[in-house]
Amino acid sequence: MKKALLLLLFSIATYAQIDKVEPPFWWSDMNLSDVQIMFYGNNIAQNEVTVSNGIIIKGIQKTENPNYVFVTIDTKNVSPQNIVFTFKNGKKSFTKNYELKQRKENSRFRESYNSSDVMYLLMPDRFANGNPNNDSHPSVTEKNNRDLPGGRHGGDIEGIIKNINYIHELGATAIWSTPLCEDNDERYSYHTYGQSDVYKIDPRYGTNEDYLRMSQELHKKGMKNIMDYVTNHWGWKHWMINDLPTRDWIHQFPEFTNSNYRMTTQFDINASKRDAEHCMDGWFVKSMPDLNQSNPLVLNYLTQNAIWWIEYADLDGFRVDTYSYNDKEGISNWTKAITDEYPHFNIVGEVWMNDQAQMAYWQKDSKIGAIQNFNSYLPSVMDFTLHEAISSTFNEDQATWDKGIIKVYQNFTNDFLYPNIDNILTFIENHDTQRFNHLYPDFKKYQLAMTLLATVRGIPQIYYGSEIGMAGNKDKGDADIRQDFPGGWNGDKNNAFTASGRTDFQKKYFDFTAKLLNWRKNKSVIHSGKTTHYIPENNVYIYFRYDEKETVMVIINNNPEKQTIKTNRFLENIKNYTSGKDILGNASFDLKNDISIEGKSALVLELK
Amino acid sequence: MKKALLLLLFSIATYAQIDKVEPPFWWSDMNLSDVQIMFYGNNIAQNEVTVSNGIIIKGIQKTENPNYVFVTIDTKNVSPQNIVFTFKNGKKSFTKNYELKQRKENSRFRESYNSSDVMYLLMPDRFANGNPNNDSHPSVTEKNNRDLPGGRHGGDIEGIIKNINYIHELGATAIWSTPLCEDNDERYSYHTYGQSDVYKIDPRYGTNEDYLRMSQELHKKGMKNIMDYVTNHWGWKHWMINDLPTRDWIHQFPEFTNSNYRMTTQFDINASKRDAEHCMDGWFVKSMPDLNQSNPLVLNYLTQNAIWWIEYADLDGFRVDTYSYNDKEGISNWTKAITDEYPHFNIVGEVWMNDQAQMAYWQKDSKIGAIQNFNSYLPSVMDFTLHEAISSTFNEDQATWDKGIIKVYQNFTNDFLYPNIDNILTFIENHDTQRFNHLYPDFKKYQLAMTLLATVRGIPQIYYGSEIGMAGNKDKGDADIRQDFPGGWNGDKNNAFTASGRTDFQKKYFDFTAKLLNWRKNKSVIHSGKTTHYIPENNVYIYFRYDEKETVMVIINNNPEKQTIKTNRFLENIKNYTSGKDILGNASFDLKNDISIEGKSALVLELK
Repeated sequence: MKKALLLLLFSIATYAQIDKVEPPFWWSDMNLSDVQIMFYGNNIAQNEVTVSNGIIIKGIQKTENPNYVFVTIDTKNVSPQNIVFTFKNGKKSFTKNYELKQRKENSRFRESYNSSDVMYLLMPDRFANGNPNNDSHPSVTEKNNRDLPGGRHGGDIEGIIKNINYIHELGATAIWSTPLCEDNDERYSYHTYGQSDVYKIDPRYGTNEDYLRMSQELHKKGMKNIMDYVTNHWGWKHWMINDLPTRDWIHQFPEFTNSNYRMTTQFDINASKRDAEHCMDGWFVKSMPDLNQSNPLVLNYLTQNAIWWIEYADLDGFRVDTYSYNDKEGISNWTKAITDEYPHFNIVGEVWMNDQAQMAYWQKDSKIGAIQNFNSYLPSVMDFTLHEAISSTFNEDQATWDKGIIKVYQNFTNDFLYPNIDNILTFIENHDTQRFNHLYPDFKKYQLAMTLLATVRGIPQIYYGSEIGMAGNKDKGDADIRQDFPGGWNGDKNNAFTASGRTDFQKKYFDFTAKLLNWRKNKSVIHSGKTTHYIPENNVYIYFRYDEKETVMVIINNNPEKQTIKTNRFLENIKNYTSGKDILGNASFDLKNDISIEGKSALVLELK
Repeated sequence: MKKALLLLLFSIATYAQIDKVEPPFWWSDMNLSDVQIMFYGNNIAQNEVTVSNGIIIKGIQKTENPNYVFVTIDTKNVSPQNIVFTFKNGKKSFTKNYELKQRKENSRFRESYNSSDVMYLLMPDRFANGNPNNDSHPSVTEKNNRDLPGGRHGGDIEGIIKNINYIHELGATAIWSTPLCEDNDERYSYHTYGQSDVYKIDPRYGTNEDYLRMSQELHKKGMKNIMDYVTNHWGWKHWMINDLPTRDWIHQFPEFTNSNYRMTTQFDINASKRDAEHCMDGWFVKSMPDLNQSNPLVLNYLTQNAIWWIEYADLDGFRVDTYSYNDKEGISNWTKAITDEYPHFNIVGEVWMNDQAQMAYWQKDSKIGAIQNFNSYLPSVMDFTLHEAISSTFNEDQATWDKGIIKVYQNFTNDFLYPNIDNILTFIENHDTQRFNHLYPDFKKYQLAMTLLATVRGIPQIYYGSEIGMAGNKDKGDADIRQDFPGGWNGDKNNAFTASGRTDFQKKYFDFTAKLLNWRKNKSVIHSGKTTHYIPENNVYIYFRYDEKETVMVIINNNPEKQTIKTNRFLENIKNYTSGKDILGNASFDLKNDISIEGKSALVLELK
């Protein structure tokens, strides 16, 4: 009895020595076969570590913090199995099981999102509350308060899953949800960019299993799950931040140092080292410690975490937050490691610049990056200059040399700067910008913008709610552009998720958008066709998308007056086609005659 | 007697068969040794052409116009001599002497302008009338009328020569005069961009010999003569336009077609062929036929003409008008031919874009051009985006994220896009832009701008008159920014060319400018040193120019309030220097202490 008790106590004591193991499991047959496992526990570094089954330990790294030990094992050619780590300190020892799982078949060559997709960006806390039981979870600090614009409103993964049909009906094919991992900040945690545990879905959103289920449900519909990954920073409540493995796990300064946000310092040959360092290493905001991707331990941690999520949750792509604020070499190593693991995996980085050469710099195999021998390996960037052009062009009724729809035309004149122009994210708004329907509270202008977005090169991204006419004014604070989707909460009087629940106003927006996006779904000429565009005249922008099989002619009339288009200017693209059928209004146009188009309206003509 | 008369008549008749020979002479020992000589005369193509002295004829090209014959001779290893061409038609024949001159020693390796220079841009008709006798010349149509803003005012080469001392005293080291070749338009010919004879100086400006003398006088002062060359178009009064050698010598359309001026079509992968063609081949204005540089005869003609002027007038460089409106391959071949002939010859092209990648595209060995396998061979482009930034920044007293002096900083963040950043023309205005002193009728802002221009990388170009405070408003028409320099005309009451003639206002501008530019003359650290700049704070821009020998710290305070600069932010550049001596105000500053600087003022500190 005494002996038994002693054994039990001993067992409890040893078990308590390991609080975290990350990644919590791995897979056999991974390209990243040298997996560096972090064991965390009180004074764990005092132990010698061995492993079972003849597995080779390639390295054991200890740091100035005795609560961490990083053990790198070689899993190459090791079949799926449970292995056992033994931690021994003098006569005391304890063990930890570790699983190498079987990968899903063909996981490495998984497909990803591309220009055939339309990405639906949503904020999970604000989209739909599918499970009211998890709104205020005991393990996290901030509780539900839907009355608080910046509070937790209760939206969750279950809410997303329940409304996949809605998104599918709309014609979007992929979901980019803003981050879902735990953000345990005391307040304003709903945006979830200050994560406190990157191996765990925030319990207010659901569980890791729920997130995997979300992928599975999307895949059943032929849709894609895109994770919003944050490499640049964690939240200040992250458990590791409170017990840093190494002092340089994060960037620290003698006094708090904000990023200067001048991302040009990343390539500016004239920049002072200090400015460049403050841009990259300064903190994005005070509550988000800036991770040091130049530290190989940090980089490995982030790389493995990212791959873990792809493999575990069967993901179809990443969006990476604040991409160009990271340590430049670090983030390109991270990106390369992920695309080495999954060669078809698409990753779009948030590179928010106002200059196309500067954005193109960051796309994989950029000739502009190559000027500085830099390759980001980042497959996709965001077309922020298009967004900027679209944010003013539709209010410019009078065209001048540089006002009106010419701004949109001009954006595309620099397409040659990008190494892969089809793999650029195009958008008219996102969760950080002014709401489109606030800028332009005008259905006609919405139609112009969506028609443009749905027919130009790139991967269109739309933002939840705009498709039913939702607005919101960023000048009132971010919460105003991140309002709850009507119908997402029990008791919502207006339910825009269903046709019958929509107001006439919402229906008008939704039906138009759904018609356009569903048409786009199977139009390879839009996904990957070439473009010819013509210098706008009278504020009318005309372009053609074409491939060997078909040609689509798009007319965007940004002039408030009716315009008459003389088709002979476009013979180069019209060729032998004789008529054009509008996919929006269904009218047919004889291409030998002038085409008449109403003010502030668009035509999308399939040529016959 | 009868026989003598007959011989005389015959001689007159034969001589009359050749109206023009171009180039009128050539030189032996040229890199361009296959010289294509154009003979022009009534039905000249009916003749067989032979040449004396064993010279090899490499080609005889006739065109649809019988008044032209193009004879290519090989002058390789042919010593200077007079050669004789014989034109024979049946029994009739006549001869034409042609001189191969001796080149000036080391002509091929002549030096050119570079970032050690300051370029003084003037318009010859408006600068100084050195020879009132040539104001209205019988051989050209438009007569002198100084009362007409857009008329001929009488300025000339003699006026420039007489005032070289003035320009030298100011501290400029090179003159860029707008074109001087004959422009025989009936009116508005004073700008001289619509040339009617590109082998002849406009008689209202002087003679070819005068132009050569201008070079010689400049060279005596160690100064440089930069010709404004126009490849894109000639004037509609050009003698060849009135009797085209080939229909495609110029670009012709079924109806008059203006350039659309959208130079982006030159590289835009989405551009319609029609738009690109109309940009390049459309006419700049109705009175300027657009030359077809894709026609080898035209290209050869322009190349030889350019080289002829360099060799004849002993030139130190070119500025090329409307560079990016030319046929793209044609103009790059032209540029390469000239720099093949003169490897050190500098050429700056007018590439007026609002985007740095687009401008960098056009500089020799551009990595951006290389994306499209394009190399312009153009050594220098103009920093139009800097000009744009400077045109608003000094009125922006309140700095924001993108307003104030940050605009200037931002311009330099893209320096890496240019293959040769030191060889970029920097300017705050030119003859086509708003006058700086009109935009900013404020001596303090003039000082800020000139200090910036004189201390940043590149080749500064200033515009005549601004150095004495001259203004002028482009909104009133181009003539208003091209007013007569006071003192350039007999009887001018105000003579700003001499210290004693200047008003106090003019003296203030001149003395400041002269002090700054003369300081710059021997500052290799400014000419070719590296730059470190710091993100502006409080609308103060601070940068350092440095090389192995010295460091200059520049502080541009664009804030109207006095500012205190904490020097410890700049230790990276201050290094072991302890004090800074202001070259403008002569005060010394201890670098261990804060530096105080008045609102809207600048300091240029030589560090000690």
